[in-house]
Amino acid sequence: MEHIPILEMGNFLLVTIQVDMHDQLAMTLQDDLTNRISQTNADGVLIDISALEIVDSFVGRILGNIARMSRVLDAQTVVVGMQPAVAITLVELGLSLTDIWTALNVEKGMALLRSSLNKTKNQVKWRADDDAAD
Amino acid sequence: MEHIPILEMGNFLLVTIQVDMHDQLAMTLQDDLTNRISQTNADGVLIDISALEIVDSFVGRILGNIARMSRVLDAQTVVVGMQPAVAITLVELGLSLTDIWTALNVEKGMALLRSSLNKTKNQVKWRADDDAAD
Repeated sequence: MEHIPILEMGNFLLVTIQVDMHDQLAMTLQDDLTNRISQTNADGVLIDISALEIVDSFVGRILGNIARMSRVLDAQTVVVGMQPAVAITLVELGLSLTDIWTALNVEKGMALLRSSLNKTKNQVKWRADDDAAD
Repeated sequence: MEHIPILEMGNFLLVTIQVDMHDQLAMTLQDDLTNRISQTNADGVLIDISALEIVDSFVGRILGNIARMSRVLDAQTVVVGMQPAVAITLVELGLSLTDIWTALNVEKGMALLRSSLNKTKNQVKWRADDDAAD
């Protein structure tokens, strides 16, 4: 299997990582995901890693890269479903994923994205109101 | 990887099949899925097979089994994201999946489940109204 499928759920994209991420697959995912974000105008990306029992520094770095790439394309990334052992490993590897939002499961991740999106919209609205008042 | 992750999205379950389904994995998925349906009281199951480029009669049978098992647990199954080549192969194999609902992508599958759910609810409501009128 060469591509990890990217599912559209409203204005969010959902990626479920089930297989070990070797170099080529990770690069393909980065390409596919950034392309899909710009094609679909997605506001957020959910990456489910509940199937991953082990992560190494490579996967940690890839997740960080994807989050940063998505952000410059105006989409927020949330990593969901991380197993406790994975969290322990990541911190022990010195990768505390400060750039990445995390949530316990897809539903909570989606709620997080929605609330952040509403906040941003309100801020834009307030600014527009302020400009109108000037 | 021994388990295919099952994601909860509201009252639906979402399974993305990305790896080739060998016997053991298929059995595990059946077990996991039926357990999750009864635990979560799910109303529907979405199975995304957009990553599958080839199916054989085994996978076709497994999909049919999962759909039938879900139905007896009161959850409707929708297979989404089937590639054209897969549809051709399935029909040529004599597996026309008449028991299974299909949809082009996750969003359409979810809309299908929601509309069927609303219809069922209305029918229950009508019946309750009829009983009340008697």
